[in-house]
Amino acid sequence: MKDDFKKRIDFLLEIDKIKQIFRRTKLFDQSRVENDAEHSWHLAMMAITFADYANENVDLLRVIKMVLIHDIVEIDAGDYIVYTNKGNEKKQKEVEGANRIFNILPKELAAELLELWFEFEKNETADANFANAIDRLEPIMQNYYSKGEAWIKHNIKADQIRKVNKKIEKGSKKLWEYTLSLVDETVEKGYIKNE
Amino acid sequence: MKDDFKKRIDFLLEIDKIKQIFRRTKLFDQSRVENDAEHSWHLAMMAITFADYANENVDLLRVIKMVLIHDIVEIDAGDYIVYTNKGNEKKQKEVEGANRIFNILPKELAAELLELWFEFEKNETADANFANAIDRLEPIMQNYYSKGEAWIKHNIKADQIRKVNKKIEKGSKKLWEYTLSLVDETVEKGYIKNE
Repeated sequence: MKDDFKKRIDFLLEIDKIKQIFRRTKLFDQSRVENDAEHSWHLAMMAITFADYANENVDLLRVIKMVLIHDIVEIDAGDYIVYTNKGNEKKQKEVEGANRIFNILPKELAAELLELWFEFEKNETADANFANAIDRLEPIMQNYYSKGEAWIKHNIKADQIRKVNKKIEKGSKKLWEYTLSLVDETVEKGYIKNE
Repeated sequence: MKDDFKKRIDFLLEIDKIKQIFRRTKLFDQSRVENDAEHSWHLAMMAITFADYANENVDLLRVIKMVLIHDIVEIDAGDYIVYTNKGNEKKQKEVEGANRIFNILPKELAAELLELWFEFEKNETADANFANAIDRLEPIMQNYYSKGEAWIKHNIKADQIRKVNKKIEKGSKKLWEYTLSLVDETVEKGYIKNE
């Protein structure tokens, strides 16, 4: 039986793999696509930076933990674009991934992170609503600053973007207002169409 | 005058640049060197994973904030290997970088992050001691799992590693004990010499 310390080391080695999982969106300097570790770091910084704009009082430590761990399941399930329906198979892979990877940890810590992961996915509490809002906003900002590059590539329309990301409003009215302004401007500049 | 919200956006765009600042150590799969954003994400995960092993009670939110922001100054000052004396010029660049970058934010938030950054650098409080311990441990683990690659490349000896990283003990006796076991094993296997 592994001791508790060794389990923690094994977990930290395993999650290193998200540095090799690449997303659809590029860094703000457009030089290359972003990976899940960089994305998760940036979300944690957004949580700190935008905490004042959450609709409800949030527990910032819980929000940060959620955004830091939310993509770890992609080690098993891979990355998907938010405009594709995940489908049950994908969701199942993510749940299995969460169970496999977080359970590398000692029992108590595994249970805490699993609970946070499921809470983030359910998107119903104040903390999860805010964490999800930030997770959705980052790629929208990246698309805005790249003149809609990933949206154009995947043939995404502004109406879809507004519809699929409306849950940002549940976490932060201010960030949703900002989101709409970015999408509107991308349409006005002619990079993407409304429908 | 920029409004508070725009200042936060500008900060989030600016700090994206740490994704392009590369370190000396490689990912655990040895495929490429790690960048500062990935490193900072991994440290935050280590803080969560190892919190039970801090010598003193720590405020985990403060520790995580410290490790998430500690390398942002490298946008202006660049990365350096811990075995080289930083020198006053380097330290001065980092302080100037901290003042420039954190002050992109609204006053109150800028003050909070600057204070955390200086606290991390001073390495005297329980939170800073633990954050620094983690920051030192990650590259030691990466070196251990790459058979001492970066140590060999930069001609670093085990005695130097033990001396320069002894401050890990201030943050966590358990992590220091683990550190010594990794260094000893790297010597025993013949990858590096004691002196």
